[in-house]
Order: sequence, then C-alpha cells, then structure tokens
Amino acid sequence: MRQRRETASGAALAEGVIAGDRRALAKAITLIESARPEDVADAEALFQRILPKTGGAIRLGLSGPPGAGKSTFIEAFGRYLTGQGLTVAVLAIDPSSRRSGGSILGDKTRMEQLARDPKAFIRPSPSGGSLGGVARRTHETVLLVEAAGFDVVIVETVGVGQSETAVADMVDMFVLLASPGAGDDLQGIKRGIMELADLVVVNKADGDLLPAARRAASDIQSALHLMRPKTPYWTAEIALASALKGEGLPAIWEAIGRYREAMDKSGALAALRNEQRLSWFRSELHEGLDGALAARAGEAVAKAEAEVKAGRLTPATAARQLLEAVFGKM
Amino acid sequence: MRQRRETASGAALAEGVIAGDRRALAKAITLIESARPEDVADAEALFQRILPKTGGAIRLGLSGPPGAGKSTFIEAFGRYLTGQGLTVAVLAIDPSSRRSGGSILGDKTRMEQLARDPKAFIRPSPSGGSLGGVARRTHETVLLVEAAGFDVVIVETVGVGQSETAVADMVDMFVLLASPGAGDDLQGIKRGIMELADLVVVNKADGDLLPAARRAASDIQSALHLMRPKTPYWTAEIALASALKGEGLPAIWEAIGRYREAMDKSGALAALRNEQRLSWFRSELHEGLDGALAARAGEAVAKAEAEVKAGRLTPATAARQLLEAVFGKM
Repeated sequence: MRQRRETASGAALAEGVIAGDRRALAKAITLIESARPEDVADAEALFQRILPKTGGAIRLGLSGPPGAGKSTFIEAFGRYLTGQGLTVAVLAIDPSSRRSGGSILGDKTRMEQLARDPKAFIRPSPSGGSLGGVARRTHETVLLVEAAGFDVVIVETVGVGQSETAVADMVDMFVLLASPGAGDDLQGIKRGIMELADLVVVNKADGDLLPAARRAASDIQSALHLMRPKTPYWTAEIALASALKGEGLPAIWEAIGRYREAMDKSGALAALRNEQRLSWFRSELHEGLDGALAARAGEAVAKAEAEVKAGRLTPATAARQLLEAVFGKM
Repeated sequence: MRQRRETASGAALAEGVIAGDRRALAKAITLIESARPEDVADAEALFQRILPKTGGAIRLGLSGPPGAGKSTFIEAFGRYLTGQGLTVAVLAIDPSSRRSGGSILGDKTRMEQLARDPKAFIRPSPSGGSLGGVARRTHETVLLVEAAGFDVVIVETVGVGQSETAVADMVDMFVLLASPGAGDDLQGIKRGIMELADLVVVNKADGDLLPAARRAASDIQSALHLMRPKTPYWTAEIALASALKGEGLPAIWEAIGRYREAMDKSGALAALRNEQRLSWFRSELHEGLDGALAARAGEAVAKAEAEVKAGRLTPATAARQLLEAVFGKM
C-alpha cells in the first residue's frame, strides 16, 4: 500500500509541475533533493511522468569570479527577460554551501526584485554533499523547471572547484561574466574557464570603469582568438554590459538567440544534449561503482591507496589486485 | 614452474634496467606493453623491484599543434642537454597511432641525430589501444627510464583528443610549443591547452618570422595573464627559440631549472607527484570497474544507454537500476 500511495504522490506532483503550479514545483524539487529511499522511488515516478515535457527551455550556465557582479547581473538580465514576456528560472550550484532554510532567504535577498517577479523562479543550490551529488540534483531541477514551462533556465555557479565544468556539462550555452578590476586587469578568472565560454560579458562597463572594460574586452578577444572554437557552428563572442544601469542586455539576449539558432539548425544542440545525457549517465555509473567498491571493500581501498602513495605498488598493480580481490579474476 | 621462471625473468630484467643496460630497458618496455596474462605477472615483479629506484628525473611534457616543429625542437633541445652531459629519454604518446615495427624507424628518423646519440633514448608511442591504455603504458615507461638513470624524460604528445591532459597528469612540468603562422596568427592551439602550460616556447623565432614570433609571444603573455597560475609557486613563462638555429635553448633549460627548484623547495613537486599517483590509481579503478560491469552486464549497459538517449529514463534512474540489477540493492 505504502509503495502505491507514494508512487501516486510522485505522479500527482508531476501533474502539478506540468500545470505550472509553483507549490508543486517547489515540493518536487524538495523531493528530488531528499536522500530517503522511499523518496527516491517517488522521484523516479515523478520523472517518468515529466520527462516527455522537458527540453523546451534555453539552458544557460553563468559563472564569473567573485566581484564580477553575478547577482546584480542576473537580477537585471532576468528582469529584462521577464519584461519581454519570458519566464525565467534561476538555479544555483554551490557545492561549498552548507546552507539550511536561511539560504533561500539569502538568494532571494540578493536578487530582491527578481524574487518578487511572478514570471521568475529562484532556487538556491541544494545544500551540502559532493559536487557530483549537487550537480545531479541541479541537473534534475533543470528538467523540472522545463516541465513547468519556463522559457529560460539560468544555472549560476559561484565558481568553487570544478563547479563550472559541472555546469557547462548541463547547459546549452556557457556565459562567463567578467569585470574590470581596480587597474586595467581583469579580476581573476580561473584557469580553464575561459575556454568553456560561448559568450563573455564584461560587466560594469559604465562610468569610470568604461575604458578599463573596453581594454578588458579587447584582451579577452585576443585570448579567445588563441583558442579553437568548441563547435564549428559558433565562435565565442564578447559583450559589454552594465547590469547596474541595465545597459547591453538586449545585445546579450540577441547573441544567445543567434547561438541557439546556429546550434539548433545544425543539429549540434541536439547532439550536445545527447552527449550530456550520456556523460551524466556515465558519471552516475562511476559514482555507483565507487560506492559498491567502498561498501564491499572500503578498508582494502584505503590500504591500496596507502601502498600507491608510499610508492610500494604501481597504481595499475594496486588497482588490479584490489578489483580481483573484490570481483574475482577478470 | 612457468610462474616462477617468469617472475624471475621480471626480476632479472629489473637488474638490467637499473644497471642502465639499454637492451634490458627496451625488453622491459616491451614487457609492460604486452597484454598477455603471464607477462602481466612478470611486469609486476619488474616494478616491485624498480619502484624504489624511480623519481630521480625531471619529467617534462611537450605538446604543440602540428607544424610547431616538435620533432626539430626535441632533436635540438635533446642534443643541447646531452651536450651538457645529461641523459635524455624521449617518449611519445599518441593514442591514434596504429604503428607496428616500422614506427620505431619513423620516430628515430624524425630525430635522426638524437637517435644516434648514446646519451639519448627514443621510444615511440605504444601502438593502439585506448588513451587510458596508452597513457598507462607511457606512465610506466617513465618509471622504467627513471630507474635506468635518465636525467630528463620528455613525454611528447601529438595533440590528439585528450592526450595533453593525460601527459600533464604524468609530468612535473608541461611545455607548450607554439610557432607563428603565415600571418601574425599563432598556429591553432587547442582549447584548454594553454592553461596546462608552465612554459610556452615560441619556436621558429628566426629570420623573417622573428617579428611575428615576438608578437605571438606578447599575445600569449596577455592570454596567460588572464589565467590564474596552476600553483602559487610558479607563474607560467614564455621563451623564444629557434630549434633550427639552436637558439634560446639554454634559457629554456634555465627556466626548467628554476621551475624545478621552486616546486621542489616548496614541497609542491612531491605533492603533485603524489596527487598524480592517486589520480592514476583512481582511473585504473574506474577502468577496471567499467570492465567488470561490461563483462557482467554488457547488454544491460547498452539497453540503459539507449533509454537515456531516448529520454525515457533519467541518467540517475538508469544507472541505479542497472547497478542494482548487477550488484544487488546498495
């Protein structure tokens, strides 16, 4: 009986989500963030129902170093989009966050106007857990807000560890926000992030900082010039903006539209999403296999690692011996 | 009897390798490239013996786009080093290679003088196999040439697919070779490679190309400037060189020396090598686990992938169901 009731509750939530009911959406997200076994079954029933309704939004990743003005930018850009009649969901990914209830208030406070906008939906990062776990739940939340009919999904990363790569692996287009620092320098962009970008927005291009922003844009242009494009169908672009003054936002939305059209027409967007699904599947498999290994032979794993660290066994030998002990000769 | 004889043969080869016997070294490399089960046991006995003798060389990775002059550079730089009394081993990593015996001739022909140099040892990429397999065997070969007493190991990649990352994961220092193209442009450096570099060498800085090489160096300097350093103990440097004329080589060797000293003194080199060993171990485990899964449930894996591709199951659900079917409830 319990099993049936809960499956029904997953399916019932799905109907609410698809109908665009915000309360159902919030409940559904809470459900997928739960680790309780009975909730896992419920969440799977939910996805079974909503999966056919997903895929309709443009999925944007947004990253940038602290101080680039991410919150102000999302607030301004989100308000610009809702002003165009579009609905916008903002999700955050932050594996470092140990936030509890108060966090929602935190995220809603830093984007106060957008949080009150009926055409917008802001959801903070799922709290705690490994990057893999946080990324999975965020990826699943993208599917949920799509099923709820949102036109634009913005997945924001605070730029801790490998979170940008995790975000790039779940979005259609990656936007890097930069800003000129006190001097002519850009504020520190992490290594390896620049080449994830399909669009770089130099924010704070206003007032005294305008000349520095222009120089920064030109520096970034030369840097991008040194990198091969991610896809033959799109060359990374640069835009200047002032989130504070609301300037440059239409040009950014236009660039996103051009990207989407080029990727869609060529079939590259469908291929990218397909590859992302498979890559997500592979990392779920790896996490599960790691879990199985830890559960069956946690001590042996630790011992093998110690041998490798001490240089007493090569990694290949240590791994072979360990796997043979657990799974038998392969 | 067979088992004992072969283990003895692995140990005997080890003595030859440690004594610096080139024939034993070549045989040992052939042994670790073999996939025959009896050779695996032999190879493990070999490593058991040589592991304490490893770690003495400076391990350099070298990459660059086709046309940057990698062979000419390695020939000139290798000859410069042997001229200083140092011994140099050159290994190649090329997962696309389907070379057989002829390949050795190929690699030795493109570095003809170095190949004849008694202080140098050139070994082509292990043929065929996945990048993971090729990388493992190359990594093991680094250990072998170290045990044989070589001072400098250069691991060259032809820059196919993810091979640069694989090389960066097994060396102390990553050198990127670039060259000015016909115009002012750099010849295409792949995305994501620039930020692996601890040192960028702009080759062909001679004759008519000198001004273009200088401009290229300055462009690269600005690009590097936008990236955070890989380690707090070293900021990526740029050097101009002409492999053809043998110019700029001492400055490159000096930069390598300064890098090594900074990384060594701070303990960062030991930490890096430790992390590399553990990361190698983890990828061996993942490969082994993938293999176990494919062996036990190859069809189920393919079916789950098809469901994920078709969007009928989320990757998380598909992976959970698959792992549960194979390993039981976890």
